[in-house]
Formats: sequence, C-alpha cells, structure tokens
Amino acid sequence: MSLDNLTVKPHDRLTEALADELDGVGTLIRTRMASEHAPRIPEVTAHLVEAGGKRVRPIMTLAAAKICGYEGPYHVHLAATVEFIHTATLLHDDVVDGSGQRRGRPAANLLWDNKSSVLVGDYLFARSFQLMTEAGRLDVLKVLSNASAVIAEGEVLQLTAAQNLSTTEEVYLQVVRGKTAALFSAATQVGAMVADAPDEIVEAFYTYGDALGVSFQIADDILDFAGDAAKTGKNIGDDFRERKLTLPLIKAIAAGGDADRDFWVRTIEKGKQEDGDLDHAVALLKKYDAIEQTRIEALAWSEKAKQALKAVPQGELTDMLSELADYVVERLH
Amino acid sequence: MSLDNLTVKPHDRLTEALADELDGVGTLIRTRMASEHAPRIPEVTAHLVEAGGKRVRPIMTLAAAKICGYEGPYHVHLAATVEFIHTATLLHDDVVDGSGQRRGRPAANLLWDNKSSVLVGDYLFARSFQLMTEAGRLDVLKVLSNASAVIAEGEVLQLTAAQNLSTTEEVYLQVVRGKTAALFSAATQVGAMVADAPDEIVEAFYTYGDALGVSFQIADDILDFAGDAAKTGKNIGDDFRERKLTLPLIKAIAAGGDADRDFWVRTIEKGKQEDGDLDHAVALLKKYDAIEQTRIEALAWSEKAKQALKAVPQGELTDMLSELADYVVERLH
Repeated sequence: MSLDNLTVKPHDRLTEALADELDGVGTLIRTRMASEHAPRIPEVTAHLVEAGGKRVRPIMTLAAAKICGYEGPYHVHLAATVEFIHTATLLHDDVVDGSGQRRGRPAANLLWDNKSSVLVGDYLFARSFQLMTEAGRLDVLKVLSNASAVIAEGEVLQLTAAQNLSTTEEVYLQVVRGKTAALFSAATQVGAMVADAPDEIVEAFYTYGDALGVSFQIADDILDFAGDAAKTGKNIGDDFRERKLTLPLIKAIAAGGDADRDFWVRTIEKGKQEDGDLDHAVALLKKYDAIEQTRIEALAWSEKAKQALKAVPQGELTDMLSELADYVVERLH
Repeated sequence: MSLDNLTVKPHDRLTEALADELDGVGTLIRTRMASEHAPRIPEVTAHLVEAGGKRVRPIMTLAAAKICGYEGPYHVHLAATVEFIHTATLLHDDVVDGSGQRRGRPAANLLWDNKSSVLVGDYLFARSFQLMTEAGRLDVLKVLSNASAVIAEGEVLQLTAAQNLSTTEEVYLQVVRGKTAALFSAATQVGAMVADAPDEIVEAFYTYGDALGVSFQIADDILDFAGDAAKTGKNIGDDFRERKLTLPLIKAIAAGGDADRDFWVRTIEKGKQEDGDLDHAVALLKKYDAIEQTRIEALAWSEKAKQALKAVPQGELTDMLSELADYVVERLH
C-alpha cells in the first residue's frame, strides 16, 4: 500500500477543502497518542505520524460526513479513529514483512525493535476503540470493529497465500479487501452514518470506499511490474521478490499452464530467484496479456466506485471523490 | 502470569458454580474464533484455547454479574470478550518475550511463526470488540477499550523498564496494573455494569479485581525467587534471568545502595550472569528482608480485595471470590 506516497491531484484538493477538519484530526491524534506512563509510545507513534502520510482514510470519513450535511464534531473523532487503526496496522505490517522503510524513513521496527512495534500497535488499536466510543454510536463501533477483523483476517490470508501457486483470484480479492478496501469502505461508511444519512446513501458510500480500495490495490499491484519507479516511488519487482501472488501473476500463472510451471515453482514457490528472472516474469505477463487483463479489472472497480457516488448528494466534494477514483487508474496509462 | 497453571481450590468451586455459563462462554469462543477465509486463525487460536487455561477472567465477569442478580445473556458475551482480549495479549506477549512454552505446549510463535501470532492476535482483538458491541452497552465498551489501552501501555512500560536499575515501585505498580490487574478489574467491573448494579457496587467490583490482580502479580513475582517449582509450575529465577525488575528486586536494590550496585549492574543491567548469581541474588533479597517486605504488600492488596467485597451483595459466590483473594497469598506461606 503506497497511496500515501503519491502526489494525487484530487487528493490535494480534498485536503484543501477539508483543511479545518484535518487540523482537528491532527490535534486529536497528537493528543491521544500521548501516554502518561510510557514515553516510548508517543516516540514510536510520532515517528510514523510526523513522517506525513496523506491522511487519505480520514479524508474519506470527513468528506462522506460533509457530503451528507453533517457539521460535526464527531466526524473528526471517527476520522482520527480510522487513522489510528491504519497506523496500528502499519506498525504490525512492518514487523510481519520485516520492512526496512516506511514513508521514506527507517521503519519503527528497525529504529526501536519489533517488540515496541507490536505493543505500540496494540496501544494505538486500543486507543482507536476508546476514541470511537466517544462518538456514542454503537452502529459505528460495529462497522469499525468488523473492519478491523477483516483487515487482520486478510493479513493472515495473505501470509498463508504467499508463495502458494494455487492462490485463486477469489483469495486475492479477499486479501485485497483486508489489506486495503476494508478500512476505506468503513471510513466512508461511518462518515455517512454519523451524519444519519439514509441506508441507501450509507450503502453507496460503503460501495464507493470498497471499490476505490480494490481498484487502488489492483493498480498498485500492476505498477509493481509495469510502473515507472521515478513516478510511483515503488521499486519495480518488489512483490515478485517477496513472492506475493498478486493479480497479474495469478492470471499469468493460470494462462501459462504447464509450460511455465517450472519457472513459477522455482521463483515463487521455492524462492530461488536469479538475475534475469524478473525480466522473464514480466515477459510472461506480457505474453499472456496479464497486465492488460488486470488493468481492465482495475478500471471496472474504479467505474463501480464512481457509479456508487451517483446515489449520494452531489457537489464539489462528491466530484473530488469521483476524480480520485479516476486518478487511481489514470496512473496505469 | 501463571495463575492459569495453578490448581486453585476456590477457583475450582467457582468453576463448578458457574459451569453452565462457562459452557456458554466456551461455545461462544469456539464459534467466534472461526474465520471464513483464513484457516490459520482457528488453528492458532485452538492451539491456545484447547490447551486449557483456567478461564479466571471470564469467571470474574460471570461471578460479578450473578452476584448483582443478572440472569443473562450478555454476561456470557462479555466473559468471552475478556477471554479473547486475554488470548490476544498472550499471543503478542509470547512474540515480545520470545517464549518457548505456553500452557505446557510449545508457544504458537514457535509452532507457526511470529507473523501468525501478531496477526491472529490482532484478529482476536478485533473480534473481542465485535463481540462486546453485541451487548449493546457503550459504557461497557469504554471500560474494556480503556483496559486494553492500559494493558498495552503496561507492556510497553515493562519493555522500557526491563534492565533499568532505577525502576521505582511506582513504575512497577503501573506495569503490574497493565499486565495483570487492568483486565481483572475490567472483567469484574463490566460484570456488575451489565447487571445495572449501582455505581458504588460497580466501583467495589473494580477495586476487588484491581487489588486481586495486583496481589496475584506481586505473589507471582515473589514465587519466582522463593517458590517451590513442583507446586507452582514456575522455574525459580526466570525473572532474574530475564532481568525483570520485580518488586522484591527493586526493594533489595534500593536497600543495598552502593554496596551491591556492581552485582546488580553486571547481572541485571548488563545481563552478564554466571553460575551462582541467582543464589547470590536470593541471598541479597533475604539479607535486606525484601521477600518479607514484598509479602506484606501482597497481603495488604489481598486484604483490600476482600474489604471491597463487603460492599457487594453477600452469598456463596461472593464468599468464593473472597477465598480466592486469600488463596492468592496463601501460596506464599
């Protein structure tokens, strides 16, 4: 997930339009990441929070709430809650992936240790639940605790699916829902809920967040094979080296059948990669049209996100959300 | 924490008196630890759940609710929630401590890997919040999310206090609240809350759980230096080898002043332990009466727990809780 690293034009406009609310979110995050007793907690959290990040998820909540006519104050709480959950999962992800970098800085697990990352992540997760109780909405709590379970489930699934050549597109989608779409859809959904929007609008916002998240993650997986490192900030081939079964790979493996099986078994299943393997993998993806097929799916999800927005109140913010869905796949041209 | 490993007579009677409710808790745990998509989750959880554990925390919730006249059904949900939180923290603790064993079986982080333990712990934590929303009580959610934050904060504090000779008794107490007392006090408190008990009774149950937890942890720390391994199931000197600043040690270090400083710096701060060091440490604890002083504190906390129970409705279950407080310190004779 590197949406945070992109300079997204519609994102910049959303940031400007929601500047006051985002200030409130920032203040709330800084206040609540404090710990009376354990200074290690704000140290680790500040390292991550101050490194920036585009606050895409809080923007989703704030935008949905405002589009539905809500004037506050609890959309700010919920936006901060969503960012806390995101930060907690980043800390744990970096431990699980053994990451070296995060947001252009050394990852917290390297600067301190894995122990601190695990425990501070737990703390932020607990704080996120404390924060959301303040909004006084059980329905919102259900959505966010459900999203948290889907996130963790998706991560476990990714762990067991990694290096497994029989991973299906269905499992891939489940992983993507967990690692990206679940928090996006919960973020937009609770924004509409706190505004007491009617059910069909709440559902439309859920669909928008879900489809945007899936579209983004599929696009991200394409860029790992076919992107421009200078533009995306991603190293080409990271997923291949980490033996992740992403959608382009799943499609190419299925299309290639027995012909390429030895290559995939060696490079992905057994992880015995040599110089030139990445180039060969990219050549196979092209041969079977896997990049293009995957791009078509990303476009379809982006379109689904935009369609969903037709059911919500129209205006400037809604337009920006729609343009964000365009932007996610524009990167693929 | 090894309360789970003891054969506690009052605990056995509580288990019998609450047998039906505990069955319900067990069923709920088995149902909710399932995952539609990621079979690794129930595998890891079942490994821990089926290894037993005395279900002390769920018993606290069930007992408090019944003492306050509650007939169900949500005390069972909350008891299962508390056990989920506990199981999640065990999984993460074992990663942080690099544990080899848990409940007499190889720890999950060894059987699978640290990654699975981190992520399955996150899943259980999220599930615990889902479960508690079902009780429909925001006040209960606040107490349990607050307890979760205190637990994580205490763990971080323990991490930074480890090997630090300047650790004070105040910091020790904070660590103990986090690692043990916070979940005990929340467990009893929410039992009373779900029964709509008056504030002073809710508070009395909080005080009971808190004092019982502190008393238990202090006793446990004493047994690490002065226990009978055959009876307690603990290896003597584990905390010393792990360089944990527990209360007996803090007292002995303070009393010894400069005279023993080199010994403590070498063995605890630098961790350069040799044969005979544990015996010498125990001798110093005896010299400064640190074991006896610590035992007096454990007794005082046990007494505080029993006093608190005077404010709650009397009966068989209340008597058993009181006897549990006695039992915790009887182990020290």
